[in-house]
Amino acid sequence: MISTTALMAQQPGDALAPTRIERRDLRPDDVAVRVTHCGVCFTDLHALDATDPGAFPVVPGHEFTGEVLEVGSEVTRVAVGDRVAVGNIVDSCGQCPRCLDDEQAWCTQFPTLTYGGVDRHDGQRTLGGYSGAYVVRDEFVYRLPDGLDPAAAAPLMCAGVTMWGPLRSEQVGPGSRVGVVGIGGLGHLGVRLARAMGAEVTAITSSIAKADDALRLGASRVVVSQDDDAMRAAAGSLDVVLDTIGFEHDLEPYVGLLADRGVLYPVGFLGTLSIASMALLIGHKRLSSAGGGGRGSTVRMLEFCAEHGITADVEVLSASRAHEAIERLRAGDVRYRFVLAMQEA
Amino acid sequence: MISTTALMAQQPGDALAPTRIERRDLRPDDVAVRVTHCGVCFTDLHALDATDPGAFPVVPGHEFTGEVLEVGSEVTRVAVGDRVAVGNIVDSCGQCPRCLDDEQAWCTQFPTLTYGGVDRHDGQRTLGGYSGAYVVRDEFVYRLPDGLDPAAAAPLMCAGVTMWGPLRSEQVGPGSRVGVVGIGGLGHLGVRLARAMGAEVTAITSSIAKADDALRLGASRVVVSQDDDAMRAAAGSLDVVLDTIGFEHDLEPYVGLLADRGVLYPVGFLGTLSIASMALLIGHKRLSSAGGGGRGSTVRMLEFCAEHGITADVEVLSASRAHEAIERLRAGDVRYRFVLAMQEA
Repeated sequence: MISTTALMAQQPGDALAPTRIERRDLRPDDVAVRVTHCGVCFTDLHALDATDPGAFPVVPGHEFTGEVLEVGSEVTRVAVGDRVAVGNIVDSCGQCPRCLDDEQAWCTQFPTLTYGGVDRHDGQRTLGGYSGAYVVRDEFVYRLPDGLDPAAAAPLMCAGVTMWGPLRSEQVGPGSRVGVVGIGGLGHLGVRLARAMGAEVTAITSSIAKADDALRLGASRVVVSQDDDAMRAAAGSLDVVLDTIGFEHDLEPYVGLLADRGVLYPVGFLGTLSIASMALLIGHKRLSSAGGGGRGSTVRMLEFCAEHGITADVEVLSASRAHEAIERLRAGDVRYRFVLAMQEA
Repeated sequence: MISTTALMAQQPGDALAPTRIERRDLRPDDVAVRVTHCGVCFTDLHALDATDPGAFPVVPGHEFTGEVLEVGSEVTRVAVGDRVAVGNIVDSCGQCPRCLDDEQAWCTQFPTLTYGGVDRHDGQRTLGGYSGAYVVRDEFVYRLPDGLDPAAAAPLMCAGVTMWGPLRSEQVGPGSRVGVVGIGGLGHLGVRLARAMGAEVTAITSSIAKADDALRLGASRVVVSQDDDAMRAAAGSLDVVLDTIGFEHDLEPYVGLLADRGVLYPVGFLGTLSIASMALLIGHKRLSSAGGGGRGSTVRMLEFCAEHGITADVEVLSASRAHEAIERLRAGDVRYRFVLAMQEA
């Protein structure tokens, strides 16, 4: 067993507290990772806000980087000392059509989540990356390409993947007109990725204070969503819109930004989506969603980011300041992702 | 002026009554049509059920066939005596990007509807095809290909077009797995069109009584939507699903029939669509909508139907039985489209 310290909430309402946990003994295909940096995702906040005692204890964290501490007897993908990254799934059945199609995040047997999941072999609840070490099946640990800073790269493993999926599915490239709604943890990476793919990027933000940032990130145009005239002027001008707003909201203004045959991806809010049929009908528009993806897609995303020098804008806090990070994230006070330095108390 | 008899409801709650109306004098680009057959669409029923007095008088009917009576001085597309068909739009601005792109049904200035619209030149309310004659701009009158029966072809102009659009947009052909939900006026044409395009067609119906019909229409499989086992067995097996259910309903069972990267077109219910984000996210599915289309698409649909001998299954009633047709349509008692013979009193 590997004994390590994790930031754990024992029950609903608890603050995160350093807690001693044991990671499992390595199976032949397991990799033990010394976690150096873990991003703070909105999902972590939702997990901590949960009111069902059955969902606890919770150790959040599903986008982290670190170094390989130890490998199982059959592991060949990585070696001790390698810089690695882990995202929001850590195992899958490996045998269903989706796993065989390299879409492990959609495993029909449900993938094992990095935290709040259940290990498919020993039945134990998974505890996340807000911890000093993690044990993960080799297939779901990724070599961190040279040149990517481990702190700034951690958010690529969730926020980055979430933006990468729809941009690639829609074959975004030179000539594409991409909109990114919400310039936050997801959105700022969406702007960077789309721009690096060659698209012309429009940032749509409720905060005029982020306009300069959006241009710096690679947007060629900024539209303030409360400015009706600006929204009207931008109507019909985009092929793909990534809507990263994290709460329930009216989709129609963003569908209105789509050109005919365009597609809207609401990737921030994962509840029930509602849209007037006519808003899709006129101009043959589409609504889709995306998230996760598979091993191959994650590898390609990391390679692309290394090639184009793309990482997140992060504010690194020591692990002991996790609570502050969570509360500032809740208040929207972050540009653009908090990362916890897990080896700093 | 062309004086003719139309079936008109003067105000909310009125039954249709034969009423003398005048059609406008022909403009240079107008065509006068002697209406022989007009399909009875669900939209007609909704129009008659409207409670806003401002929406009346109403003469329904937006899928009709007939013969050219007279042409304006500049008309070259058709000549007196030609067999023709008219659908649900009769004019558009002709200058916006969508009109220039041959998508007149999405005219940004709004197309002129065949009934319940406002003529863009004289400002008069349009009165529909439940009448002995109609005057329409030449661009929106279509030559009825030889071999298409005018009664059975009338529903192609609305129901047919509505099914044609998504099937063509999704490039349905050999190898495509298409589902059609609801075997009614829309759905029975959807099955025929998809089969003729080479697709393997699954009919999904709430009525086991329609199973034999669905197979006769060209489906290779019938799934009864209330049969949970059958729905589960069919899960993930379709690339494109055309959902023709005409009232608000849960979309999730039909999204569940989609294979990964499949698309659902709810084309029957034109209100607010709601879907769980996760139902789209897992397997990267899409929601779209379609209807109308443009002149070119209508011409190609008619040519395809003539080539493949596709028309609607119709029950032809004399014009005087319009009320009976409407009430039986309301009760779902039709296989599969009523057509009014407008020259029979």
